[in-house]
Parts: sequence; C-alpha cells; structure tokens
Amino acid sequence: MSDETIDDLMDATYRALCKHGYADLTMQDIAAESDKSKGTLHYHFDGKADLLESFLAYLLDRFEERTESVPGETPADRLHALFDELLTPTDEEAAAEFRTAVLEIKAQSPYNEAYRERLQEFDRALHDRIADLVAAGIEAGQFRSSVDPDETAEFLVTVFHGGQTRAAAVDRPLDRTKASVHEYIDAVLRSDAAVGEGGDDGQRGADE
Amino acid sequence: MSDETIDDLMDATYRALCKHGYADLTMQDIAAESDKSKGTLHYHFDGKADLLESFLAYLLDRFEERTESVPGETPADRLHALFDELLTPTDEEAAAEFRTAVLEIKAQSPYNEAYRERLQEFDRALHDRIADLVAAGIEAGQFRSSVDPDETAEFLVTVFHGGQTRAAAVDRPLDRTKASVHEYIDAVLRSDAAVGEGGDDGQRGADE
Repeated sequence: MSDETIDDLMDATYRALCKHGYADLTMQDIAAESDKSKGTLHYHFDGKADLLESFLAYLLDRFEERTESVPGETPADRLHALFDELLTPTDEEAAAEFRTAVLEIKAQSPYNEAYRERLQEFDRALHDRIADLVAAGIEAGQFRSSVDPDETAEFLVTVFHGGQTRAAAVDRPLDRTKASVHEYIDAVLRSDAAVGEGGDDGQRGADE
Repeated sequence: MSDETIDDLMDATYRALCKHGYADLTMQDIAAESDKSKGTLHYHFDGKADLLESFLAYLLDRFEERTESVPGETPADRLHALFDELLTPTDEEAAAEFRTAVLEIKAQSPYNEAYRERLQEFDRALHDRIADLVAAGIEAGQFRSSVDPDETAEFLVTVFHGGQTRAAAVDRPLDRTKASVHEYIDAVLRSDAAVGEGGDDGQRGADE
C-alpha cells in the first residue's frame, strides 16, 4: 500500500471507531468510511485486531511527530505545551467518542498482546518525552535539582491516563486534568529561583 | 433477597468477572459461580447490566466500609493508609483479572448511564474521603495551609484511576503508583514544620 492509501485507511478507521465504538466495529464499518472495499481490507489485514494494531502504531507515529518539537522558549514552557497538546483534542467534535474507543482498546489490552505492546510503546515514548524536558529544565535551573526526571515522568504519564479514563468514564472535563498538571509543574517542579523570573511567573491555567 | 443471598450473589459475580471478563460474561456464568439457578437470577435482575449495576453499588458500599476508619494517628498517616488500602488488592490472585474487568466496565460507562452514575458516585466518595483527610491535615498543621483540599483530592482521584488503567493496560505495577502517591503526600502536601517532627520523618515507601 502507498503511504497515501495507509493514511486514508487510518482516517477511515478513526471515523469508524468514533461512530461505532470498538466492541461493535467491523471491517465493513471501516470499509464504508473509506474508498476501499471490505475485500481489499481483508487482503491487507488479518481482520479487525490486525488493522487496529496498525492503527495504534499509526497513532504513535503521529504522537511522535506532534510532540517532537512542541513550542516554547524554555524546557518548562515546552513541558507545559506538551500537556496542552496531549490534553487538548485535535478533533473536538469526536473527542468523547474517540476517547471511549481508546479506553475500550486499553481494556482489551490484557487479552491482546499486540495491543499491549503498542500501548507500552506509547507509554515509553510519552515517558521519554517528559523525562527529557524535565532533565533539560533541571539543567537550565528552572526545575529543582532534587526532582527525579524518571519518577516525575512516570507520575505524569499516570496522571495523563487517569485524566483520559475519568473523562471517558465519568465525564470529568479533561481541562481539569490539564489545569492540575500545569499547577503541578509550577508548584512542584519549579525551583524557587525560577519562580518570578522573567515574564512567566508560574501563573498558567487551562485557558491558555 | 436476604442480605446473605445478596452477598453470595455479589461474590459469585466477582468470581465470574475474574474468570470470564466483562464482555463475555453471561448470567449463566454468574449462576454457575453461585448456588442459585439462572432462572432465579433473571427473576431478581433484568439481565447482566442490571446485575452489574447492583455489583457496582455493592463495591461502593464495601469501599465506604473499608475506608471509613483507615488506621493512623494523624490525618497524614490516614491519607497514606487510605492509598495503601486503595492500591493494594484484597485478593492478590485475581487482582489483574478483576482490574481488567473494572476497566472494561469503565469503558462501557459512556454507553450505560447506570454504570456511569455508579462510577461517578465512587469518584465523589473517594474525592470526599481524600478532601476530608487533607483538610484535617491542614487544620492539624501537618499540611501546608496553601494546599487546596478539593483540588488535591481531584488530582489524587485522577492519579488513582491512572494507576489502575496502566496496571491493566500496560502491566505497570500498582506499587509504583503507590510509591508516587506517598512521595506526593510527603513532598508536596506536608508543611515544612511537620517534616522531621515526631517519629515519622516523611520517609515512607510502597513496602509498608
């Protein structure tokens, strides 16, 4: 398949997941959202689980592209921007549906090793992105030297998943998680020396 | 039904969920784990979703009983103990299976209003338990006066869900979340005056 065909098929998978959820999703549903036939899909993929594994790999690639160069002058700014990016849906209209579908896939992960590996790759990629920014922030004197980049990254990945789970399961707005993370970065990670420096005095909310 | 019958049925539901997961679970599976017939179950419940809604309500009651009087001399000790209780499975052997089943139910919540209401009740109960302990800790001078009990409780409920989701989806040990929460309580909530006071110097790990 050409890259373009793959992109089209992944977009179709995204739309079909938002429309039907994970449990009820069929290859026919995905074909219906694309310009390919169900037969073509079955030629390239061993079924729904195989196609969705490719979809998870595609999401990881997109995540890495989107977060490779988050904006910001300092590591702290970039860490804030990373969580703005992570916790702001790119597609507001289908955000709730997509979040639910992803939670369904996470809940399938114990039954499906390929899903689990993809999700673990995502966790590692997110962890590494955060840990690098935290380490850079310590290096720059913005974050306390007592902060552990690895532990901090682990904790923030957990907060990310908790926010997503609660948004899907109990309708808790993702903006509240976003505000908590900004607060955590400013109140817990920032060194006293950095607070009040320059134009950014650590006041930052979910509304930015 | 007598309280005893309900308890037996809820135990049977628990065992059936651990054995079969949520998606494949049938009324017959639950009957097979109890001394009741499938017919009796159908007499009392409108089907699997209705029975599971009762099961969620039962879990909430048990949660409130278990956490009503967590041990500890001070509010900070009790907050640590609450998270030890929350993040230590009562049934180690079936812990992973049960966690997966609960995640499946959370992922069904957007499709099932009754599940969502029960899960929201759980979130509120957990939030209130934490917020009360944080407020008591501020009152006692153990926690900084700048700590907001409501915001802190919201954040820690999110961390709880994140830990559960990651344990189920990517095999991340729940003990790591437990250690992060203990660290958060000691490093972020504790007032400087309280650290080093008495026998508890803020050193506390997941191994307690």
